[in-house]
Amino acid sequence: MAFLTIKTMNFHLDKSIELLARTPQAYKELFTGLQYDWAHINEGANTWNAFDIVGHLIHGEQTDWVPRGRIILGNQADKTFVPFDRFAQEQLSVGKTMDELLEEFDQLRQANLQELKSWNLSPTDLAKTGIHPDLGTVTLQELLATWTIHDMAHLNQISRALVKHYAQDVGPWHQYIRLLKDKQG
Amino acid sequence: MAFLTIKTMNFHLDKSIELLARTPQAYKELFTGLQYDWAHINEGANTWNAFDIVGHLIHGEQTDWVPRGRIILGNQADKTFVPFDRFAQEQLSVGKTMDELLEEFDQLRQANLQELKSWNLSPTDLAKTGIHPDLGTVTLQELLATWTIHDMAHLNQISRALVKHYAQDVGPWHQYIRLLKDKQG
Repeated sequence: MAFLTIKTMNFHLDKSIELLARTPQAYKELFTGLQYDWAHINEGANTWNAFDIVGHLIHGEQTDWVPRGRIILGNQADKTFVPFDRFAQEQLSVGKTMDELLEEFDQLRQANLQELKSWNLSPTDLAKTGIHPDLGTVTLQELLATWTIHDMAHLNQISRALVKHYAQDVGPWHQYIRLLKDKQG
Repeated sequence: MAFLTIKTMNFHLDKSIELLARTPQAYKELFTGLQYDWAHINEGANTWNAFDIVGHLIHGEQTDWVPRGRIILGNQADKTFVPFDRFAQEQLSVGKTMDELLEEFDQLRQANLQELKSWNLSPTDLAKTGIHPDLGTVTLQELLATWTIHDMAHLNQISRALVKHYAQDVGPWHQYIRLLKDKQG
């Protein structure tokens, strides 16, 4: 028996802006002015901690979401995006404190949301396309939807790392914590 | 070939208090005063949204972590904890707004952390035990470690639900988002 998969589209521009405006504040509440090493806890070799992630989010504000939106909405013939460097923060965050990164992320996000609002996007605009260097043709709406949940995907990663940090310390309670039961974490 | 699993204990009391003091603020930044339905997005039937989760966290502050710590440290002969009701919020949150729940959670957490600090716990205290109705003997340190990561485990759950909310909207980017690739979410 085959099942019908119903694909629900949920994107809403103002709703997305509401969340995008909040996530930098949530990151700040968790990681500004820490005495202990919460921002530097990862899941082992070649995994990211919160410090790495905020650097990555900053680079996204600088080179990914809004700059790609400008390409989609602009007049140039070539709509191909510049490839995004997922490891740029390894250089760009050197010598900066977590507090500085959090402030930079927040400032960049606010400026980008101002620009996004200034575009006064219509449904026709949201359907306009660009060329992702690996994924091919994508719409402005898909770009904005991905931006909206990208902070959350990384908050998911950070929260997973922090839960695992006390994996051995919770004793028998590990049975009740899904992240400590799943093999893949 | 057998591998040796090294079980690292990471618990640190002041470090735990640092995180416990921050998580209610992070929840507030994400979910206070929302115009849109972010606090009511779940992962489908019989899953929790942020509104459910904050109600659950409130009930934990009222009946679980600190009350169980009092039992462990107190003089009564019977150290058995009262069972925790994982569904209490279904009644307790009725008629309340998300903003009210977030404020209540924050106030309860602050009061509980004041009480925790007033205990001036020694290593001997942290090794004292109580009886969990299902899990058996547990130490005060295990209880406090579990409390510390419990907010994060639920932030992991909330962030997963919000990412999935735009699962169909991100288009080809779903390939880059681990939560949208994993079958189990």
